[in-house]
Amino acid sequence: MKLASLKSGRDGQLIVVSRDLGEAVAAADIAPTLQAALDNWHEAAPALQALYEALCAGKAANSFNFDPGRCAAPLPRAYHWADGSAYVTHVELVRKARGAELPESFWTDPLVYMGASDAFIGPCDDVEVEDEDWGIDFEAEVVVITDDVPAGVSAEQAREHIKLLGLVNDVSLRNLIPGELGKQFGFYQSKPWTSFTPVLVTPDELGDAWDGAKLSLPLRATLNGTLIGAPNAGQDMTFDFPTLIAHCAKSRSLMTGTVIGSGTVSNVGSKVGSCCLAEVRCLETIEHGAPSTPFMSFGDRIEIEMLDASGESIFGKIDQRIKQYHPPR
Amino acid sequence: MKLASLKSGRDGQLIVVSRDLGEAVAAADIAPTLQAALDNWHEAAPALQALYEALCAGKAANSFNFDPGRCAAPLPRAYHWADGSAYVTHVELVRKARGAELPESFWTDPLVYMGASDAFIGPCDDVEVEDEDWGIDFEAEVVVITDDVPAGVSAEQAREHIKLLGLVNDVSLRNLIPGELGKQFGFYQSKPWTSFTPVLVTPDELGDAWDGAKLSLPLRATLNGTLIGAPNAGQDMTFDFPTLIAHCAKSRSLMTGTVIGSGTVSNVGSKVGSCCLAEVRCLETIEHGAPSTPFMSFGDRIEIEMLDASGESIFGKIDQRIKQYHPPR
Repeated sequence: MKLASLKSGRDGQLIVVSRDLGEAVAAADIAPTLQAALDNWHEAAPALQALYEALCAGKAANSFNFDPGRCAAPLPRAYHWADGSAYVTHVELVRKARGAELPESFWTDPLVYMGASDAFIGPCDDVEVEDEDWGIDFEAEVVVITDDVPAGVSAEQAREHIKLLGLVNDVSLRNLIPGELGKQFGFYQSKPWTSFTPVLVTPDELGDAWDGAKLSLPLRATLNGTLIGAPNAGQDMTFDFPTLIAHCAKSRSLMTGTVIGSGTVSNVGSKVGSCCLAEVRCLETIEHGAPSTPFMSFGDRIEIEMLDASGESIFGKIDQRIKQYHPPR
Repeated sequence: MKLASLKSGRDGQLIVVSRDLGEAVAAADIAPTLQAALDNWHEAAPALQALYEALCAGKAANSFNFDPGRCAAPLPRAYHWADGSAYVTHVELVRKARGAELPESFWTDPLVYMGASDAFIGPCDDVEVEDEDWGIDFEAEVVVITDDVPAGVSAEQAREHIKLLGLVNDVSLRNLIPGELGKQFGFYQSKPWTSFTPVLVTPDELGDAWDGAKLSLPLRATLNGTLIGAPNAGQDMTFDFPTLIAHCAKSRSLMTGTVIGSGTVSNVGSKVGSCCLAEVRCLETIEHGAPSTPFMSFGDRIEIEMLDASGESIFGKIDQRIKQYHPPR
């Protein structure tokens, strides 16, 4: 099934969306919000699935046209957002561009940081940033949403805790990153907003493209109408999702509704392009000694989406613009 | 006023607690949970204050004895937990113990990391850890809870966004920290649980001890009945709370209910002891070449509390034990 949240209050209003993303129906009788559904998933999921099947069969009462422009992030706010950097080839490239060695441990010990789960925005929301000089970039990623995960879970056990999948734009402020990483406490100001595709889907919607651990389809990132890249998210993923979940749950449990991200999707050699401008600039630096592609400007449009084998959009599209933000005086 | 959450479901049941922490009364008619109250604070706060005044006057219907043992964290789960390291004297000491220089920028640019806001535990809950070899430590801190904070807020503007204060034990796994900091992505597995005092209080409860930016009272940390330290939280705080909030909100807004932590309270010279064992061990290392105090063991009891000028507990006490955790097989 496919789930979304219409903008409404702080937590949105849960709706079920048809497979072709054409129709939707309110799920208020089952759960008012997606977090409420996840809080009681074993009861809510079968009821939502039944409603989804009725909707897809054209038999749901009070259905309406689905409009991504009315959507919040499917979880408009969440209790935990852990973002990995699972495509180590991307990290290696970034290091190579600045002439640094990649520690051998990076191939065996996942890189994960905590992101701002209170700063999620909808698929068509503007990305508000105060200053272009902060180095505005997108990062196209795959995410999974878990139910309650006990501490110390194994990667094998973690598989069954993946309940939903989606895509995100992990907005990054590149020029704020070096200072923050230098302090060793991780990203903070450099990772402001995260935007989500209109819908999240259950694993069964993905067919053979989902093997329980990786999603093997191209992730398309388009900037101002030009395709920047479409690397396959199932290739060169050094740490699959169950491994990332087990890493995150090593010393404590994870709350239902936890969002776990893959990090920027990247394929070895970047032959099918990149899912962030930082990688494009690293490739330019390695080849020409300096980057020629600038970071994003106010007004720039970023689209992120994934198509199935027949060319249909699975999650709907992130389609948003960068907008100058003016802080309070 | 003083607010707490009785254990109930995932979000607890909001109660108002009397000034002397003796009596409590359910606040369900005003807001079912503390997050719900914070979501609508400008309406909920006056109603809660009126109930508090009735309770303290012995005039609240259906009041009952307040039992911290029945309490969850006041916010049993939250959308954001940003922990600072505002007592730079502590950071300097840790560095000195391992023979490293403190970058000059650490005195002017706040250190902040994102913590696990989905892993909050109650004041009397066991701290469950799988392995003593992870180096179990407590960190006694002061925290503030904000309402909605707009991006780009100034420190001066940030003052008015501080709605509640409390204390936490930021449980730290010291032996997991060097590996994580070495990867530059910040703490993850090394910061599992955060426990809270039974109650949070509004700033007006603190009298002259709170100047709108710092809380000038000793923070007492007691391990197995021995006072480890009682440094004054208002002294040697390099970055006050409004400064920390402005730092956190530089590039995006903060959700109401955001928890901002001071980091381990520490006074220059540590003459009144320390608020974590890591600092005790650093002092031993500097004096004797090696630490003699071990980290915590299963069964150890940690108490954290702050007394007002007349010796009364303000927030109630964190009083918990370390317990061995056995992961699922």
